[in-house]
Amino acid sequence: MENLTGMSRHLSTSGADIDAYMHELGTQARQASTVLRNLDTARKNAALLAIARHLDTARDALIEANAQDLERGHQAGLDAALLDRLALDETRIDGMIEGLAQVAALPDPVGEIDGLRSRPSGIQVGHMRVPLGVIGIIYESRPNVTVEAAGLCLKSGNACILRGGSEARDSNAAIAACIARGLAEAGLPAAAAQVVATTDRAAVGRLISMPEHVDVIIPRGGKSLIERISREARVPVIKHLDGVCHVYVDATADLDKALAIAVNAKTHRYGTCNTMETLLLDAPVAAELLPRLAEAYARHGVELRGCERTREIVADAAPATEEDWQAEYLAPILAIRIVDGIETAMAHIDRYGSQHTDAIVTESYTLARRFMTEVDSSSVMVNASTRFADGFEYGLGAEIGISTDKLHVRGPVGLEGLTTRKYVVLGDGHVRV
Amino acid sequence: MENLTGMSRHLSTSGADIDAYMHELGTQARQASTVLRNLDTARKNAALLAIARHLDTARDALIEANAQDLERGHQAGLDAALLDRLALDETRIDGMIEGLAQVAALPDPVGEIDGLRSRPSGIQVGHMRVPLGVIGIIYESRPNVTVEAAGLCLKSGNACILRGGSEARDSNAAIAACIARGLAEAGLPAAAAQVVATTDRAAVGRLISMPEHVDVIIPRGGKSLIERISREARVPVIKHLDGVCHVYVDATADLDKALAIAVNAKTHRYGTCNTMETLLLDAPVAAELLPRLAEAYARHGVELRGCERTREIVADAAPATEEDWQAEYLAPILAIRIVDGIETAMAHIDRYGSQHTDAIVTESYTLARRFMTEVDSSSVMVNASTRFADGFEYGLGAEIGISTDKLHVRGPVGLEGLTTRKYVVLGDGHVRV
Repeated sequence: MENLTGMSRHLSTSGADIDAYMHELGTQARQASTVLRNLDTARKNAALLAIARHLDTARDALIEANAQDLERGHQAGLDAALLDRLALDETRIDGMIEGLAQVAALPDPVGEIDGLRSRPSGIQVGHMRVPLGVIGIIYESRPNVTVEAAGLCLKSGNACILRGGSEARDSNAAIAACIARGLAEAGLPAAAAQVVATTDRAAVGRLISMPEHVDVIIPRGGKSLIERISREARVPVIKHLDGVCHVYVDATADLDKALAIAVNAKTHRYGTCNTMETLLLDAPVAAELLPRLAEAYARHGVELRGCERTREIVADAAPATEEDWQAEYLAPILAIRIVDGIETAMAHIDRYGSQHTDAIVTESYTLARRFMTEVDSSSVMVNASTRFADGFEYGLGAEIGISTDKLHVRGPVGLEGLTTRKYVVLGDGHVRV
Repeated sequence: MENLTGMSRHLSTSGADIDAYMHELGTQARQASTVLRNLDTARKNAALLAIARHLDTARDALIEANAQDLERGHQAGLDAALLDRLALDETRIDGMIEGLAQVAALPDPVGEIDGLRSRPSGIQVGHMRVPLGVIGIIYESRPNVTVEAAGLCLKSGNACILRGGSEARDSNAAIAACIARGLAEAGLPAAAAQVVATTDRAAVGRLISMPEHVDVIIPRGGKSLIERISREARVPVIKHLDGVCHVYVDATADLDKALAIAVNAKTHRYGTCNTMETLLLDAPVAAELLPRLAEAYARHGVELRGCERTREIVADAAPATEEDWQAEYLAPILAIRIVDGIETAMAHIDRYGSQHTDAIVTESYTLARRFMTEVDSSSVMVNASTRFADGFEYGLGAEIGISTDKLHVRGPVGLEGLTTRKYVVLGDGHVRV
């Protein structure tokens, strides 16, 4: 066991105690979920806003707790990027509070009935949207995730068990205290949103192995964490792996649009999963477009790695290797390949892509339709920057993550992704003949 | 290795060979899936009807192959019920052929776009329904499942790998030959629907551990098979476990409707998962309704096991134990409990039910609304028999199974359950600001 973040709870170091503790969290979460799934929208919104108020009044305590995490992080030699993600300041606390208010303002997905139709037997059959039950969320350094995840789970009627990174343990404990006060004020069970009060890794192993208590696991963090959890989980996982996103510029493309999209998709932000990592250019446009692109990328300090044909036009591009086509750089580096037509472009995406987000730039109706239909990615775009693949941009109101899975939910996951649908059947004494 | 059902393929007995064989099936299925997902509806329907024609012309061969399975089954001492499920006769072959024609007549779910809306940024965002990819189906004795599963996967644009029971190996090989001829006639890849040509159990272990080749596993069969597969799978599983279904008769119920529903839900068929196993009676109606029910059940030869209060009214009911409340009898046996109001009834369902199908009989608007909203089962019914929980009755056109899972799909699973949705984004040179 590394450390404890429990506010009032203390655990000894034995694995059996971790097991018992996680079992208790799970049991309580399951009980809370039966309350949460039947709450009306006003009660849930009241709890969200109460949590927001308690975050507001606890600003000093939050920043103080965070300072302890930052101090420990400095001593442990965490890099600047990690420390930045870990840091809480007034602006980020504002963001957490506004985020909760935004989630409170979203329509409640629970209880929505759709497709209610009469059947020849006389019964009416439809779907009702209902919460999943208990959601386990495992994440790393950003302590604001604790609030975001609790808010989305609460609004969607799910109990949640939150397991943050050990580097954020004091911040998360302080946030958990605000959540607990808000839940209590709104009269909701404390177990509606529980923060795991140990940073022992065994707690994660247990959390992902309790299908009796947990309905789905959502891991957020680095690829190795997510892969390990997916491999070991005995509970369904909604996960995000790579974002190796492509833009394909077809011969019919409007080159001004192509330039704008290719530059935006790469340079708007480098570290996001929906950033373009490989640009595919149809051969007929390469000679005209590539020099303009190279100039724009040079202004942004983007390093280019190209296929041989690319390097004939842009001499100072480095040669792209097989690894470059597979790379999720998350950095100002771009791989460029010149291809002969949409078939080769789609074959490249099929082979090297991660089924995350891929875009075509074209003025051809037929090619737009083909690309949109045939490319098997969670987001497929025509004449738009891959950077739009985001829950807020898509109008989900909020996002708990982006799924690169196929089952249940693909792409940005909002409230609806945290729900499922049951059948409802209305009769009047109907029996089956 | 028990035996081989390969038509042209022969495997030696080593585990490495099984691994290589399954890997090859998976690789080919993945390739075929990229063709299938882009097929237009007419091509898929043509293939379904071609398979149907080849089944029709192969009737003698099918019955002959089935006779070998039946003979082997007799020698192995299979029980009568299992032999019945295994048997193919002209009527069942007719059923397979009609089933394919029905699936061909269903609307194609693939490519449907819904919710396309404009966002403030100017992009339009919507969902497009797309196939899952490769589906592995593991089932037991009924050889008609081979045709049903292949038909549903084909129509929904998915490649499938089918693993039937060893007892049906010759029947399945004969059916596989018809499927292969139909696919060839329609110009589709042979790997669109592959029947595993070995009855070695290691093949199942491999099939459920190839996430790179298989997107979802659907096991159909006994609970122990399904539990084992769920426990060991490294691929998402859509599964059906218990059907411990309840009917709750509320004090306001119309007793004629209650009688009709309670009798139908129990006696329409005994061996189905949507058969009522426990009847819950609100105390005020018990004295009047129970004797009428007991008489009706006696006529059907249904054995009653009741709580103490039930036995005060129906003296010859056996005492119900804790196991009875948990039992999925699949037999002419019914557990009956008298409860005091909807709270107790719903608490009973929550504790002992399997979240499959539960019904209330009531004339109360308020209680109907509460039951429908609060009971967390895949099908929740008001004034209708639990026996309606079925893909055909719900209008899905066909059913690959019933899911008692929460993620992705709950309740009867039709074509839509074999698909997922990707986001489509339409722009006109839009970039993110």
